[in-house]
Amino acid sequence: MKKILTIGEVMMRLQPPNFKRFKQTNSFDVCFGGGEANVAVSLAQFGENAVFLSKLPANDIGDMCAMELKKWDVDTSHIARGGERLGIYFCEKGASQRASKVIYDRAHASINTLADGDIDIQKAVLGASWLHFTGITPALCDEVAQYLESVLKVCKANGVTVSCDLNYRNKLWSKDKACLVMSGLMKYVDVLISNEEDCKDVFGIVPANSDIEKGELNINGYLATAKIVREKFGIKTIAFTLRESISASVNNWSGLLIEDDKFYHSKKYTLNIVDRVGGGDSFSAGLIHALSNEYEPSDAINFAVASSAIKHTIEGDFNIATVSEVSKLAGGNGSGRVER
Amino acid sequence: MKKILTIGEVMMRLQPPNFKRFKQTNSFDVCFGGGEANVAVSLAQFGENAVFLSKLPANDIGDMCAMELKKWDVDTSHIARGGERLGIYFCEKGASQRASKVIYDRAHASINTLADGDIDIQKAVLGASWLHFTGITPALCDEVAQYLESVLKVCKANGVTVSCDLNYRNKLWSKDKACLVMSGLMKYVDVLISNEEDCKDVFGIVPANSDIEKGELNINGYLATAKIVREKFGIKTIAFTLRESISASVNNWSGLLIEDDKFYHSKKYTLNIVDRVGGGDSFSAGLIHALSNEYEPSDAINFAVASSAIKHTIEGDFNIATVSEVSKLAGGNGSGRVER
Amino acid sequence: MKKILTIGEVMMRLQPPNFKRFKQTNSFDVCFGGGEANVAVSLAQFGENAVFLSKLPANDIGDMCAMELKKWDVDTSHIARGGERLGIYFCEKGASQRASKVIYDRAHASINTLADGDIDIQKAVLGASWLHFTGITPALCDEVAQYLESVLKVCKANGVTVSCDLNYRNKLWSKDKACLVMSGLMKYVDVLISNEEDCKDVFGIVPANSDIEKGELNINGYLATAKIVREKFGIKTIAFTLRESISASVNNWSGLLIEDDKFYHSKKYTLNIVDRVGGGDSFSAGLIHALSNEYEPSDAINFAVASSAIKHTIEGDFNIATVSEVSKLAGGNGSGRVER
Amino acid sequence: MKKILTIGEVMMRLQPPNFKRFKQTNSFDVCFGGGEANVAVSLAQFGENAVFLSKLPANDIGDMCAMELKKWDVDTSHIARGGERLGIYFCEKGASQRASKVIYDRAHASINTLADGDIDIQKAVLGASWLHFTGITPALCDEVAQYLESVLKVCKANGVTVSCDLNYRNKLWSKDKACLVMSGLMKYVDVLISNEEDCKDVFGIVPANSDIEKGELNINGYLATAKIVREKFGIKTIAFTLRESISASVNNWSGLLIEDDKFYHSKKYTLNIVDRVGGGDSFSAGLIHALSNEYEPSDAINFAVASSAIKHTIEGDFNIATVSEVSKLAGGNGSGRVER
Amino acid sequence: MKKILTIGEVMMRLQPPNFKRFKQTNSFDVCFGGGEANVAVSLAQFGENAVFLSKLPANDIGDMCAMELKKWDVDTSHIARGGERLGIYFCEKGASQRASKVIYDRAHASINTLADGDIDIQKAVLGASWLHFTGITPALCDEVAQYLESVLKVCKANGVTVSCDLNYRNKLWSKDKACLVMSGLMKYVDVLISNEEDCKDVFGIVPANSDIEKGELNINGYLATAKIVREKFGIKTIAFTLRESISASVNNWSGLLIEDDKFYHSKKYTLNIVDRVGGGDSFSAGLIHALSNEYEPSDAINFAVASSAIKHTIEGDFNIATVSEVSKLAGGNGSGRVER
Amino acid sequence: MKKILTIGEVMMRLQPPNFKRFKQTNSFDVCFGGGEANVAVSLAQFGENAVFLSKLPANDIGDMCAMELKKWDVDTSHIARGGERLGIYFCEKGASQRASKVIYDRAHASINTLADGDIDIQKAVLGASWLHFTGITPALCDEVAQYLESVLKVCKANGVTVSCDLNYRNKLWSKDKACLVMSGLMKYVDVLISNEEDCKDVFGIVPANSDIEKGELNINGYLATAKIVREKFGIKTIAFTLRESISASVNNWSGLLIEDDKFYHSKKYTLNIVDRVGGGDSFSAGLIHALSNEYEPSDAINFAVASSAIKHTIEGDFNIATVSEVSKLAGGNGSGRVER
Repeated sequence: MKKILTIGEVMMRLQPPNFKRFKQTNSFDVCFGGGEANVAVSLAQFGENAVFLSKLPANDIGDMCAMELKKWDVDTSHIARGGERLGIYFCEKGASQRASKVIYDRAHASINTLADGDIDIQKAVLGASWLHFTGITPALCDEVAQYLESVLKVCKANGVTVSCDLNYRNKLWSKDKACLVMSGLMKYVDVLISNEEDCKDVFGIVPANSDIEKGELNINGYLATAKIVREKFGIKTIAFTLRESISASVNNWSGLLIEDDKFYHSKKYTLNIVDRVGGGDSFSAGLIHALSNEYEPSDAINFAVASSAIKHTIEGDFNIATVSEVSKLAGGNGSGRVER
Repeated sequence: MKKILTIGEVMMRLQPPNFKRFKQTNSFDVCFGGGEANVAVSLAQFGENAVFLSKLPANDIGDMCAMELKKWDVDTSHIARGGERLGIYFCEKGASQRASKVIYDRAHASINTLADGDIDIQKAVLGASWLHFTGITPALCDEVAQYLESVLKVCKANGVTVSCDLNYRNKLWSKDKACLVMSGLMKYVDVLISNEEDCKDVFGIVPANSDIEKGELNINGYLATAKIVREKFGIKTIAFTLRESISASVNNWSGLLIEDDKFYHSKKYTLNIVDRVGGGDSFSAGLIHALSNEYEPSDAINFAVASSAIKHTIEGDFNIATVSEVSKLAGGNGSGRVER
Repeated sequence: MKKILTIGEVMMRLQPPNFKRFKQTNSFDVCFGGGEANVAVSLAQFGENAVFLSKLPANDIGDMCAMELKKWDVDTSHIARGGERLGIYFCEKGASQRASKVIYDRAHASINTLADGDIDIQKAVLGASWLHFTGITPALCDEVAQYLESVLKVCKANGVTVSCDLNYRNKLWSKDKACLVMSGLMKYVDVLISNEEDCKDVFGIVPANSDIEKGELNINGYLATAKIVREKFGIKTIAFTLRESISASVNNWSGLLIEDDKFYHSKKYTLNIVDRVGGGDSFSAGLIHALSNEYEPSDAINFAVASSAIKHTIEGDFNIATVSEVSKLAGGNGSGRVER
Repeated sequence: MKKILTIGEVMMRLQPPNFKRFKQTNSFDVCFGGGEANVAVSLAQFGENAVFLSKLPANDIGDMCAMELKKWDVDTSHIARGGERLGIYFCEKGASQRASKVIYDRAHASINTLADGDIDIQKAVLGASWLHFTGITPALCDEVAQYLESVLKVCKANGVTVSCDLNYRNKLWSKDKACLVMSGLMKYVDVLISNEEDCKDVFGIVPANSDIEKGELNINGYLATAKIVREKFGIKTIAFTLRESISASVNNWSGLLIEDDKFYHSKKYTLNIVDRVGGGDSFSAGLIHALSNEYEPSDAINFAVASSAIKHTIEGDFNIATVSEVSKLAGGNGSGRVER
Repeated sequence: MKKILTIGEVMMRLQPPNFKRFKQTNSFDVCFGGGEANVAVSLAQFGENAVFLSKLPANDIGDMCAMELKKWDVDTSHIARGGERLGIYFCEKGASQRASKVIYDRAHASINTLADGDIDIQKAVLGASWLHFTGITPALCDEVAQYLESVLKVCKANGVTVSCDLNYRNKLWSKDKACLVMSGLMKYVDVLISNEEDCKDVFGIVPANSDIEKGELNINGYLATAKIVREKFGIKTIAFTLRESISASVNNWSGLLIEDDKFYHSKKYTLNIVDRVGGGDSFSAGLIHALSNEYEPSDAINFAVASSAIKHTIEGDFNIATVSEVSKLAGGNGSGRVER
Repeated sequence: MKKILTIGEVMMRLQPPNFKRFKQTNSFDVCFGGGEANVAVSLAQFGENAVFLSKLPANDIGDMCAMELKKWDVDTSHIARGGERLGIYFCEKGASQRASKVIYDRAHASINTLADGDIDIQKAVLGASWLHFTGITPALCDEVAQYLESVLKVCKANGVTVSCDLNYRNKLWSKDKACLVMSGLMKYVDVLISNEEDCKDVFGIVPANSDIEKGELNINGYLATAKIVREKFGIKTIAFTLRESISASVNNWSGLLIEDDKFYHSKKYTLNIVDRVGGGDSFSAGLIHALSNEYEPSDAINFAVASSAIKHTIEGDFNIATVSEVSKLAGGNGSGRVER
């Protein structure tokens, strides 16, 4: 059991039931999610000691969120309380030719007031072996970006491995701003997780012949991208999720792990999607678990991809899958026969 | 069919189903409400041409709200679109000894950006005979208070009757601020609606021997309060809702209409409450309908109270009751026999 | 186990969930009900061999209805199949000062085509000791009224006891028509079940000093009514349900059994109503069970009233209560302690 | 914003939730639908001034329907009120090898009593540029067919373009009757919408080598059919929906627009179906919007097909899709990536 | 209408709604199921007189189960009542790469106390033409296995055809025990139903080149297996279900009927699965119906496979499909077009 | 924050939604409960360090239960895992004259296998100030009773205060057995919680003139009972819950605390019941919190009663109420006004 930190925002997700559109619903299913919280929950299911660092409002809505994290065994003892509100995102599930739609109502959330003293960082980092963040956290606001950097410094001083999922969100910041801030943070990063689109959006890296919208893969493009990233930022380990979007209902899904000059392409799955939100985060969690526990590279990328394949079959942001379930799929049993 | 304007904020209400507490739920029932929107909907059910003035965000969440108002026949053509977000209030329904609980997440709502030019006020007021607002609207922020006053001026210039429900909200402003602003607006008001508590909170008027928490009535106290209000602000028509809270499940409910030196105390109802949010607004709507259509004072207060008695049996903020239903109850038939 | 027949229409009931009004709902709870079907189901729960005679459309909607009856152990083998449609009634549940509302969509139902040969009446009546119908059945249309009379003749020829619940429905026929037809059928009736209102509506019998809308009891009025009925139609056994409607949520409920010159007034219950539709039918079923099994008159009326008291706590038209449950309540245990 | 009229019946749809069969359910999801109402709603979402002409019962059930249409911005001011009942259709959603099943309970609906004077047709047509009807409307009864023809005459007198979706319903009339009546109406029609099956059923046009049940396309067959129709009725613009039914869950879907001698075959979509009822109507609405706004023919057919592709992913009869959403899909983006 | 007996356990199935995992749910959908009960229900839908032999606890939970069976026309008059509890199985529905998961809580169920005298076997068997059981029944416990054998003896003495679905459950007994007991029962069996896996698990028959987990078919392997079974136990008629598990959402499905030296391979369906539990039982029911009614062998296997194809589209254990529906699919119409 | 232990069984509760009876439902709401678990959850909401000792099966069902406890901040780290199954109780909610009904399916639960070594008792007790158990725990089976006594010995050795709620369950053991075992355990008990009925059932103490079924209070009877208990077992602090059952919907509720010769009768509440299961446990939790934190006796009993009054308004076994909420009610504010 490793102590693994993640830091970021967690929001309330409000979603019309089944395939109802916003304009059709008169109820919302409630769950909670956010890149780093999702990773923490998944890691806790994998048996790790997952510690989530964030700030929640000091009211019942904040409690709802904290209680959900506790239920899934995430250590919430370092979460600060205060600020104005919990961020919300409204999510309408797509199907077939109709894309899922997300409306953010996250401005003015408590985490934007995260300040020195809110969290005892030294205590939180003590004994930790890994910290994970996504590009969403520094995008929230300058104060949070600075706070994050101060945490990363403590991590590096304590020998903590740092992973980052680029995760560009154009509603939160411009590409220029993202490039400036993220480039500055790369020096703390040991493991970079991305997809082709994010590398393009954040770092402006565009290998030839890729067309993401078309949902077709181009392994060479990813390798070329990784090479540029590696040379620019000195990051040895880079992982890509490779999504081929056939439609909102069916995707192909695989992953690519690049270590130094070697690359490992995972098995590819055709997914009948139940809920794809949090798919990338479940990949990150799988990869962190695998690398933390010294899986072979090819096993690591297969575990990460199997982890996220299962996530696509689970409602909500969180990947409720155990090591045993993921290993079984990664090991080749994807027939879906009933387990009695 | 009178053209009646109301102006104010409308929010999304998120409520755990049945009697679940916030911490127990994983879904929210969705409805929409706000003092002036509630009055508009009820008036539309009474057959009036109800026009709601407000501002909603230009996204699907704003559309959801506007569509709900359209469904209930409210004229939404003057609602401005823009701003950041739709205000939300979380509502946990109480029962017996457990009070209902409301958590507001209304800051930064679109209406706070309401500005000149957003609504064509002259056009909206054209042909209108009445405008209603509550003390919540000027409490939102100074800009909205000023906007409201500018609308009231247009109304007075056009001979529009103005009613105001004091409705003090301590989360929005201090009592001192409320007293200052509301006192300034009273010169535009023809009909004032209140309860004893609001008059105390806003104007500091405290007649002897009242104890609101105990849920006991004190008619003389209300009359004394009305006298002070009438003398201070020159308002001829004052109406009070008289709530005796036995518990969150059972209330006694009646009303008092005071015109000059005369007062009219309505029939009193013992309510088994289904949903009490919006109870005061349904009283306002009943009173406006009755006074607009020149009911006798005693009929008017009985209509207003019957209107709100029915509201307490209806889920959501809106009073889905027709003139025929209210009149039947006001006329004495409250036996609840099945209507076939 | 007695073989007891009932004959009449059964409809699909469509009801908004909880206390939603028609205009608020986007789903309906589905159940089935109709006076005589309700009596049959309740009798089957009491262990009797309840046979329901009716006609249902030969499609899945008719099957849904028949299957529900089978589930509750009603003998459906004599139900004819054919005709155009299953009658529907929309039901909006009231609360407190808001009455429940029923909208009938029952015209053109299959039962209106019930014709000789549809049911093997001789076979159905064979071995039966009792037949029950309500005033709704002959009100459906002339053909059904004639069909009913032909069945009653077979019953009388076979020594079958006949009970009738007057149950006047003003949407189905005029008071004059009802009086004409029902007076003609009284010669077949051994046990008449009514309330004061029905006797007034159908037979024009109005004892002094009664005011049903006010929900106050007037035992003498009922006795006077019974005397007139007894003298006019020669019916020895007459039972009244005595409902005092405080509101749609709270009723007082008792019963009166009159045999020759003696009367037996049951215990009175204050009911917190879950669903009052079918309340009268559960009284009829309780009375039929008690009289069929030769309870003492005072026990019979107490059983009938306890049966219907429990019905008011059960969702749907059907009284899902056993002899043991009813007897326990009739015997005095209404404290509502948990039965473990 | 064009003023576009549609005329026909709208029914209440009662559907077991999810994939439950009729015999399994104890609740129904409620929505409303009917060919011409569906087209009106879709056109209103496209920003057109959609006016629906029909007749609804004057009760809460009729109100429910009218309110739903208002919610979606359809102009309901010309809908007549009266008659006996709202038609109902029960719909059981199929999956894979199990077909969806529809049971109609539409006889005796209010629209069948539609008579001169119920609607002010001159006023309704004033300013309109288009009227749409389906073959269901004249099939309802002779009176409605005559009423429809009278409306079509007014339309032609006012230069209104008329479109007709053949939509043969064998439960409503025979093929012979349909041929007779529909042939008579073709002289008013400018744009004919059909599928191969309808042309065969209504007009007896059977090109060689087609086998609809097999779900295989035969473009030449459609062109041959169009040629016959064009020659017979002088209709210049003919559009076909081309459905290849793989199963109840998966369909291929495309469209064919034929103008004079030219034809335009749209992109083809593989649909994972959420709800296919109303699929044809969303095609009609897309086509009417496109042709009304003078899209190029190939753009028009692609817009119509994209419109209906999205409809298949939406619950209920109505196509809740905007021009922007449809254009994006028609323009090539069907990858289903989350829109944030 | 044949009288067909089935004997075995029926359990309550508790399932999180939709695709929720156990750890996510706060409600369970309730249905009932068990191999032999499932067969009885399906046969009753096919119009047979299906008699289910079992034992249920004498409480409301046992009643719930019996009532559900009655609803579906199963004869429950021979079900014994008593014992401790109704067995439960918790079922989590899988999707795509995530398998469905079943947790049994069936120990100590009432059926394990089934003893001589509980059922009047002579009476139950009287007039019966067929009895069906699965390998689960003798696996429950030794007493039930002996009871079953005593029933089989009565069946053989009365000329009743006996079918057995091998259905190995490793949670109930070891392979060795299963082989011993089942081999002993084969002498009573006329029709054996199995899949390759069960024959391997129970009888240790492993033809070359099969890999069940991979979900690939190997017809020759099945034929070889059948040959061994036929030679060993003298069973003339053997049927296999052939499932190719692509994923938990998509399966290919066909069947193989082997009579003496001839075999009949059915049409193959690609199934989009709604609920696959009970799929095998619906095959058995289809086969029993077909063989009982003397279908041609190829028609019989096609009917059995079509029956089970439809089952995969239906929620719950029971196959709610009629002969007409199955015949239509078996006859080639699987296009899933709406049936109006 | 005190460390407080509770020890006992926790079960899954399966309840039909709303007021449906078992025979009407096709879904169950799921929650978890058991006397000592309920106390632990309530204490955790009061801010105490509540540690629950028990044994759960090592499967997802056991996980569901543990996760729910974690969500509510109960320390689950000492819960043993293993054994056969989680006990279940089916609960049908009563109303008015219909009592709630509980069917236990708790035999063979994991806790019955609780054995030395399953829990590190010394570690669990370390630092604890209080342990609570109910009469249900020793009633489960002899092994659990012995295990409990061994824990009580450790508690006494460590100066831990012990409270016991008598809670007689006649389904678990006879009155004679209960008397024998409970009398033996009284020497460890410092605070005894009971109602009149339990003292009668367990210890045979029957003061004159009490009639529990009638729901009338008899304070002297309770004092007499307490005197006997005190003299017999030397327990100084005794508390009674005083329930007057008007019906299943309405109860009066108060409490009595007796310390040496003094008694303190709390305020009495009239409860409109939402869910009364766990009402006694929430009283115990309130009392333990109050006595642990050295409230004055009259404050303690008022806190305990207010705690349980609120519980009756909350769905599920657990009392989701904070110290602030309970104190406010105990302090006199029970008007149920909305808290904004």
